[in-house]
Amino acid sequence: MLQKTPKTTPSRYANQRMHYDEAIVFPILDEALFCTISYSVDNQPFSIPTAFVRKENKLYIHGSVGSHFLRQIESGIPVCISVMLTDALVVAKSAFHHSVNYRSVVIFSNAQRIDDYEAKASFFKELTEKIVPNSWEYLRPMKSKEVDKTMLLVFDISEASAKTREGMPSDDEEDQSLPIWSGLIPIPSKRLTPIPDELSVNIPLPSHLSN
Amino acid sequence: MLQKTPKTTPSRYANQRMHYDEAIVFPILDEALFCTISYSVDNQPFSIPTAFVRKENKLYIHGSVGSHFLRQIESGIPVCISVMLTDALVVAKSAFHHSVNYRSVVIFSNAQRIDDYEAKASFFKELTEKIVPNSWEYLRPMKSKEVDKTMLLVFDISEASAKTREGMPSDDEEDQSLPIWSGLIPIPSKRLTPIPDELSVNIPLPSHLSN
Repeated sequence: MLQKTPKTTPSRYANQRMHYDEAIVFPILDEALFCTISYSVDNQPFSIPTAFVRKENKLYIHGSVGSHFLRQIESGIPVCISVMLTDALVVAKSAFHHSVNYRSVVIFSNAQRIDDYEAKASFFKELTEKIVPNSWEYLRPMKSKEVDKTMLLVFDISEASAKTREGMPSDDEEDQSLPIWSGLIPIPSKRLTPIPDELSVNIPLPSHLSN
Repeated sequence: MLQKTPKTTPSRYANQRMHYDEAIVFPILDEALFCTISYSVDNQPFSIPTAFVRKENKLYIHGSVGSHFLRQIESGIPVCISVMLTDALVVAKSAFHHSVNYRSVVIFSNAQRIDDYEAKASFFKELTEKIVPNSWEYLRPMKSKEVDKTMLLVFDISEASAKTREGMPSDDEEDQSLPIWSGLIPIPSKRLTPIPDELSVNIPLPSHLSN
């Protein structure tokens, strides 16, 4: 179970929509490709979207060693990491009850920098396999100077929670017999057919990309 | 032109990928349904995803008058609003040059609360029409108590910028002749066929939802 603290307890829907169970939180993190990381300098918040990998109870991000953003947060200042998957628009009979079906996670944590070469190289493989499954062995192998140019940061996933909405609209009782259509419009993120660049027009699409 | 300030000038790709022109920033805001709003209390950042509407150079969000989040930011403390549309996974011949085609916006601003009834009612119409175009007139009309229960906040869009990546992978010159497929995997968010709830199985799908 994750830590339920004042920071991870919302003011509304605290019972129906909140989850502190890794079995709910981790699959959301594994399905989402991007998170938004927020940090604050003199109470001025900054937010950056970035790709990430979850492994056990840790979340990993990377970037250039020259990145201002990474240099700010590697000192271990408090960060808030948020992730949202949007599943459907919830179309009610009244505008007021329109909503969204979503699965979101918020993590409060602090960065730690990882300098170990093998850990960095292994992160690259895990990130690549998360974004394009089964592609790692097919690609040109990583070079050590590429690993060296990259900063890897890790965050504990401990003070964290998920918030989700699922199911149909909740219209007011007196509206339920109105002849107004209500239901869901699914809005999944879909992967479409790959488009080759000009160097690849004569290269067969590998099987890991054709499924 | 939007304000280019130290906060809206990144450490990397400051020339190629940054945009301060409303003609680039506003369409991204109009296409995105959700933003992430970050604020900070005693240097502890918090982030909340929420729906929004842009109108001229203002961004509007709403929520329950009981929302802890809205009550925190309505005082006018600094917020950072971020939006990201992900268009494609950029698959290079090496893992190192994998990337993402995206269109993102960051806005630094402060909330102002709007209590005017007509302004709040008109926001509801604009938000509903943004999320489900041409649906407002079809729905059960808004009730005044619904407007009263809702808090509306507005932010100036002035210190703001867009960051985008588009186009094909940028592989190293020595990799360009490798027989490894490279290109794009488009990952648009698609609206699928609406699914009626049990109150609506015998109600015809209105034309604004069937396109």
